[in-house]
Amino acid sequence: MKAFLDDNFLLGSETAVRLYRSYAADLPVIDYHCHINPKEIYEDLKYDNITQVWLYGDHYKWRAMRSCGVDEEYITGNASDYEKFCKYAETLEWAVGNPLYHWSHMELKKYFGYEGVLKRSTADEVWKLCNDVLRNEPLTVRKIIEKSNVEVICTTDDPVDSLEWHQKIREEGKLKTKVLPAWRPDRLINLEKKEFPDYIAGLAECSGVEITGLDTLKEAIVKRMDYFSENGCTVSDHGLDYVPYAPCTPEEADAVFRKALGKQKTDLLESEKYKTFILLFLAEEYSRRGWVMQLHYGCQRNINSKRFEQLGPDTGYDCISSYAPSEKLTMFLDAVHTRCGLPKTILYSLNPNDNTIIDSIIGGFQEGCAGKIQHGSAWWFNDNKTGMQQQMISLANLGVLGKFVGMLTDSRSFLSYTRHDYFRRILCDLIGGWVEAGEYPEDYEILSKIIKGISHDNAKEYFGFK
Amino acid sequence: MKAFLDDNFLLGSETAVRLYRSYAADLPVIDYHCHINPKEIYEDLKYDNITQVWLYGDHYKWRAMRSCGVDEEYITGNASDYEKFCKYAETLEWAVGNPLYHWSHMELKKYFGYEGVLKRSTADEVWKLCNDVLRNEPLTVRKIIEKSNVEVICTTDDPVDSLEWHQKIREEGKLKTKVLPAWRPDRLINLEKKEFPDYIAGLAECSGVEITGLDTLKEAIVKRMDYFSENGCTVSDHGLDYVPYAPCTPEEADAVFRKALGKQKTDLLESEKYKTFILLFLAEEYSRRGWVMQLHYGCQRNINSKRFEQLGPDTGYDCISSYAPSEKLTMFLDAVHTRCGLPKTILYSLNPNDNTIIDSIIGGFQEGCAGKIQHGSAWWFNDNKTGMQQQMISLANLGVLGKFVGMLTDSRSFLSYTRHDYFRRILCDLIGGWVEAGEYPEDYEILSKIIKGISHDNAKEYFGFK
Amino acid sequence: MKAFLDDNFLLGSETAVRLYRSYAADLPVIDYHCHINPKEIYEDLKYDNITQVWLYGDHYKWRAMRSCGVDEEYITGNASDYEKFCKYAETLEWAVGNPLYHWSHMELKKYFGYEGVLKRSTADEVWKLCNDVLRNEPLTVRKIIEKSNVEVICTTDDPVDSLEWHQKIREEGKLKTKVLPAWRPDRLINLEKKEFPDYIAGLAECSGVEITGLDTLKEAIVKRMDYFSENGCTVSDHGLDYVPYAPCTPEEADAVFRKALGKQKTDLLESEKYKTFILLFLAEEYSRRGWVMQLHYGCQRNINSKRFEQLGPDTGYDCISSYAPSEKLTMFLDAVHTRCGLPKTILYSLNPNDNTIIDSIIGGFQEGCAGKIQHGSAWWFNDNKTGMQQQMISLANLGVLGKFVGMLTDSRSFLSYTRHDYFRRILCDLIGGWVEAGEYPEDYEILSKIIKGISHDNAKEYFGFK
Repeated sequence: MKAFLDDNFLLGSETAVRLYRSYAADLPVIDYHCHINPKEIYEDLKYDNITQVWLYGDHYKWRAMRSCGVDEEYITGNASDYEKFCKYAETLEWAVGNPLYHWSHMELKKYFGYEGVLKRSTADEVWKLCNDVLRNEPLTVRKIIEKSNVEVICTTDDPVDSLEWHQKIREEGKLKTKVLPAWRPDRLINLEKKEFPDYIAGLAECSGVEITGLDTLKEAIVKRMDYFSENGCTVSDHGLDYVPYAPCTPEEADAVFRKALGKQKTDLLESEKYKTFILLFLAEEYSRRGWVMQLHYGCQRNINSKRFEQLGPDTGYDCISSYAPSEKLTMFLDAVHTRCGLPKTILYSLNPNDNTIIDSIIGGFQEGCAGKIQHGSAWWFNDNKTGMQQQMISLANLGVLGKFVGMLTDSRSFLSYTRHDYFRRILCDLIGGWVEAGEYPEDYEILSKIIKGISHDNAKEYFGFK
Repeated sequence: MKAFLDDNFLLGSETAVRLYRSYAADLPVIDYHCHINPKEIYEDLKYDNITQVWLYGDHYKWRAMRSCGVDEEYITGNASDYEKFCKYAETLEWAVGNPLYHWSHMELKKYFGYEGVLKRSTADEVWKLCNDVLRNEPLTVRKIIEKSNVEVICTTDDPVDSLEWHQKIREEGKLKTKVLPAWRPDRLINLEKKEFPDYIAGLAECSGVEITGLDTLKEAIVKRMDYFSENGCTVSDHGLDYVPYAPCTPEEADAVFRKALGKQKTDLLESEKYKTFILLFLAEEYSRRGWVMQLHYGCQRNINSKRFEQLGPDTGYDCISSYAPSEKLTMFLDAVHTRCGLPKTILYSLNPNDNTIIDSIIGGFQEGCAGKIQHGSAWWFNDNKTGMQQQMISLANLGVLGKFVGMLTDSRSFLSYTRHDYFRRILCDLIGGWVEAGEYPEDYEILSKIIKGISHDNAKEYFGFK
Repeated sequence: MKAFLDDNFLLGSETAVRLYRSYAADLPVIDYHCHINPKEIYEDLKYDNITQVWLYGDHYKWRAMRSCGVDEEYITGNASDYEKFCKYAETLEWAVGNPLYHWSHMELKKYFGYEGVLKRSTADEVWKLCNDVLRNEPLTVRKIIEKSNVEVICTTDDPVDSLEWHQKIREEGKLKTKVLPAWRPDRLINLEKKEFPDYIAGLAECSGVEITGLDTLKEAIVKRMDYFSENGCTVSDHGLDYVPYAPCTPEEADAVFRKALGKQKTDLLESEKYKTFILLFLAEEYSRRGWVMQLHYGCQRNINSKRFEQLGPDTGYDCISSYAPSEKLTMFLDAVHTRCGLPKTILYSLNPNDNTIIDSIIGGFQEGCAGKIQHGSAWWFNDNKTGMQQQMISLANLGVLGKFVGMLTDSRSFLSYTRHDYFRRILCDLIGGWVEAGEYPEDYEILSKIIKGISHDNAKEYFGFK
């Protein structure tokens, strides 16, 4: 029996261990998509206690706690940080097989040197240890980043964002890690939201373009993209229910846009037309600028109205959607490809049933550079051992795994860098297992290129991080 | 090599064996959903031969036989019981990997002490042995229940059912096993069926309420629910093609209902409106009464018209449906939750592709008690080793496996209690495997709670069986 | 560690090895569905170099190369055969886990005696060795077929095909392998294609029937089916986006057909009506003639318009479709079954998510002979190790694996017969693994029947190849 979370955690064969130790373990992290706050990096945020790092914004943990019947008081409510931590420790006992179980213990081990098991009966000891490290080492945001050997961080930023914290970090010039903005124009696209007109007003203000119709909207967008470019952005990202495709004339899209600006309701087809139009326009810009286009889809948001009213978005009330028509996705990609050539594109579906479909689709648009169209890393509800294995096996079966750009954290917490380690172990276990089984030659010259590539090098090359 | 069906069947590691032996093997069975007939329990049905127990109503076995080209004469036709048994024995030879292969041999071992392999050449020996036990021990229905260590049985009952057999069992007071009714109002909901008006007439009669519209229908339903409550019912169950959601006013629902009562055809949207309305009403009642709501969906019934005309429903001609829109499901759950708080709810889809989707959905409605919203056990076409593993792995990945209420038989045969054993072995193998691999600590204090919980304790607590 | 591609490749247990060696390895191949050209068999095509065999028409390899950023010049373009081969060798290095990796090496080993690893640095040595064998042995098409121990080949033929090469092979009488035509009437069905009227004109000419409406169309079809029958055809095959079901009167179908003949656009529902009508007519003919009906669906074709214009169809730009409504499929099957009894039918979906659905459906139409309705072998994007395992596990769970008709190549290359070996190894590994784990008895009398059946005997029996 292997001891829990020993040094060879998740590495099921000698070859897996060798691949991991020789080629993966020590590589820096390129975290090309996450949701952390650059202000906290600039200000080098200090924490008082582990609850602040772990439980203030992590809806994965909140869901687990709710599933154990923990009262909301101890989750997002007014209970003390200590009480919240104890409730989480108790929850964890029951969460056998959940990636939270692994992540939490990996984080305790790596950042706090705790080698035991977190449960209700050890909660006090862990609470004290962690808080001691956080306050006295002190384990600040920058320390965490340094300890995690992070080479690049791409945050997630709205087109109207001032990017002031990115600039300050750059101007200060002290951080070895590159902190770059990523362009996430969801609010530009979701015109059915009631805050859309206000958002466009804000965009007008920050771009200095009076937005009265589609042409001026595009003008404002281009200005903001220029601004993002100046600030080092090379990556865009979209969060979509599904990839829409309802082609229309500029005049139609303009009419829908004006309707929404005028706070009139648009119907589903009208929304799709506008979204398709804007997405095509953006894709063309990405292509022209050499930006990467990330499309995240397959999500249904805020399914619990009562909680949404109380707690707002991103609080643990989203789910996987069963609606992600492959035909719209392919027609959208084809339309971009026909117009201007696809930019580098990464497709992520929240529905793991889409794995094989995605891998069959990306193969139909590869052209010009290695792994140009990528099947994104297993993500959110899928960033667990089986989810990652399935994504990589499917990609290996239908595509070329060796060109995969690998893992990202998608995280809201600085301690989540261990997920890169988690991913690398699963990767080495998978490929090591194939070698052990005689399904791939034991040729370390090539294996090293593959493991290093997926762990680090491919992403660096793909995104053009020098 | 492990011997076929030895004592450690399905237990792939020492830890798995230890978990199974120490915490799972001897626990009583809580069978909170099945299709057995309480009359047969009360009357303590005796069998003449193994064909009567095995082949009289088991469409799983019928399908296997048809797949081997066995003539219907030997399945539901007029061939002798002996001949039917021989054909089944022959069929079994080819059914490598099918759960029937395991279940049949587990049943032969547990109830008849047969340790060999059933095949055409051993059919005579098995036939004699089983019939001897059935007639001479005699292995009656109550003996089987006793031997199976069954603590609670929930049957499946129509709102118009008199529940007389449940009452007789209770009044007699001899059976240690609790036999409780479960409320299954499918015929109340399927208003597009041609027998609907007659069914409503029957409901009117048995409830003593003249049903002329929706208000009196609701009155009649409430009366019957009161009656079920008096008879110990705490569990409801629905068999749906998919979970509908088409909200409407009471007036609209009333109009559709009257139309159907008047034998006029209703269109799909009308049907959905009526169904949504009634399901919301029922869910509110469940919530008020503290009943559990079970939603089984993802099934298309009676796909073979010729056979349906000859043999009727539940004869092996149903299949998994690819239509189960997650958005309707979440909107239905949200509507219930907003109105009155969801009752305890168990979601089961017949389509295993829905596993991850369900696990992502239940996490969005957890509130108030441990595992309030459950992802139901792998069911029907999925109650095999891989199906169970996939359901539990998905639940573990996205939810809290330790709070799972576990297995049910869904069975029409008294010998099916071995399926609980089958499930527990797979459970212990899964969790034992994680412990062996260093993915969960070897901490038997917690592991025992988890294994006992999923095997028995969680269901007892969840359904409130004292 | 097992050496790469050793004799026990993919055989993970002693029982697996024993099953493979004793019952599978030496059986002849029945390749009941492929896309090879009978002319090349008759003419006993000789190759100058390995690029001609491997890279002239294999879009699997092309996709892999494109995924590695190889320029189209080296794929379908004007680069030399040597350069193309080198690019493929380089591509292969990165394709860890891809079936191409295995197939390529299995082919090098079996047909060329090469036991090393193909990579950029060995490309020259492999190039010379293979070309030497191809030119000097010489390894012609007939040699390959002979070396591959092929008993039957069913090609894929259009109703207007003259079948002259099949006839010549037959008349010559030298080839031990049976080469039979298979009826693939896709162009008859896809009336929305702009070449449809011309196609029908061609059909009229070759059948000698003036086609003016549906009745004469049916007459022409029957003539061609008679012709195919005379030439030994017993197998049909359909490539469908999805199985349609929109029943209509003959008059409606006739009107749609005439519309299409007159080069007027038909809408989606009209197309579906025509297609449903023709498919029902054909199914009835298959049933009457005792032909097997193969339905391949779940594919979206030519998703990359630019490439389609340059390179045409079947060049690597197809993908899996997420649209394959199970209800239409079941209603179509039911309609055929009600009219005239289903012919022997094999269902293949390109979407692996459909595995369980298909297995639940076929069980609802079994009748009359063993395994009459089949879940076809893992296919195209699924013909890899996990794809085959999943198809067989699902079939085993829900149906009777022992009656499976097994593998086909679906191939455009003569070297692809190794895929039968690949399949047999995976089969033996799966069933051997069950035996080792005590999930099936170590009873070689039955196991031999099952392994031989799935590897060869079942297909021979099912298709009636004497």
